[in-house]
Amino acid sequence: MQETNSIVYEIYSKELSFTKREILFIESKYERVQFEKGTIILKSGKFIKHQYFVFDGCLRTFLISKSGKEHTIQFAIKNWWISDYIGYFSESKAVLNIECIQEATLYKISKDDMEEIYAKIPKTESYIRKKLERSFASFQKRILANLSQSAKERYLNFTQEYPNIEQYVKNYHIASYLGITTESLSRIRKEIAKSGS
Amino acid sequence: MQETNSIVYEIYSKELSFTKREILFIESKYERVQFEKGTIILKSGKFIKHQYFVFDGCLRTFLISKSGKEHTIQFAIKNWWISDYIGYFSESKAVLNIECIQEATLYKISKDDMEEIYAKIPKTESYIRKKLERSFASFQKRILANLSQSAKERYLNFTQEYPNIEQYVKNYHIASYLGITTESLSRIRKEIAKSGS
Repeated sequence: MQETNSIVYEIYSKELSFTKREILFIESKYERVQFEKGTIILKSGKFIKHQYFVFDGCLRTFLISKSGKEHTIQFAIKNWWISDYIGYFSESKAVLNIECIQEATLYKISKDDMEEIYAKIPKTESYIRKKLERSFASFQKRILANLSQSAKERYLNFTQEYPNIEQYVKNYHIASYLGITTESLSRIRKEIAKSGS
Repeated sequence: MQETNSIVYEIYSKELSFTKREILFIESKYERVQFEKGTIILKSGKFIKHQYFVFDGCLRTFLISKSGKEHTIQFAIKNWWISDYIGYFSESKAVLNIECIQEATLYKISKDDMEEIYAKIPKTESYIRKKLERSFASFQKRILANLSQSAKERYLNFTQEYPNIEQYVKNYHIASYLGITTESLSRIRKEIAKSGS
């Protein structure tokens, strides 16, 4: 296998360089898994020991509230990570469910293996620490937008954050991500189409 | 200064060990600052280049929505970190305001200085990376709790997460943190007092 073709450069960064030995070590820690469209790969209440790097496909995490309502928390497309981070980081039961919206090819890794890679190859820790900072900021940004922006503004941000995702996901996924009804979503789309913005 | 008395062990961990040289280097990067009760140390719309380690005191971050309503996002007490992480991590304008609820002694550090410490003393990066994971999980937990728990459950979680904070903060701070009115907060407290739970 050509070094630069390794999945390691997809998962971390093409800007980092790895020795052959490092690549083999990292590759040995990840497992390639494939799922059909519609598969629920995690159910809330179960322990979750892995996080997933999305090589291909589209997934979402969602919460089912006490009243039975679904709330989509995150979508993940190519090159994103997905997990229930409450369960994964704090080694407790998952709160969220993870569903494959499209057939997906993922690379899964356990927390212990991730720690081993950090310890042996510290540049991976720096890289992931920065990624974690960006994820934290972007999650916080989205929550604050829910408090301070109109549904139309949030929808426009969503289409920028997840370009081309609308062809894969159902209207109720998007509506439950934005915290609005599917009727409001249609109204917003019509408004935008009319104004050409 | 005795090595083990250094602020470095407060900011990072008493479980890490540092050489004298490392301690002097880290100390040179932090600035001790003091603020009176009521000081707004960050206003939304300004650039924020620092994060703050709370040595003593009590602070909160809050958002003012378009309609003028205040939303308390985070409280910070001794040993917590506080900043507008959207502005700090992505080098953009702050969305939040930071207010000292009590007189506060803080240690401030810029992003560049933090990066310098990581590069020179990698164990600090591991330590902060793990802290960041916990913060991310706990912020996410709180958001999901808003979607799936009753106001009473959220209030009980709050008193566990921030023990003894109620003596420092105003009722409307707590209510705006929980996303409820001050009237609902009083009702919940009465209920709990009655049931003795």
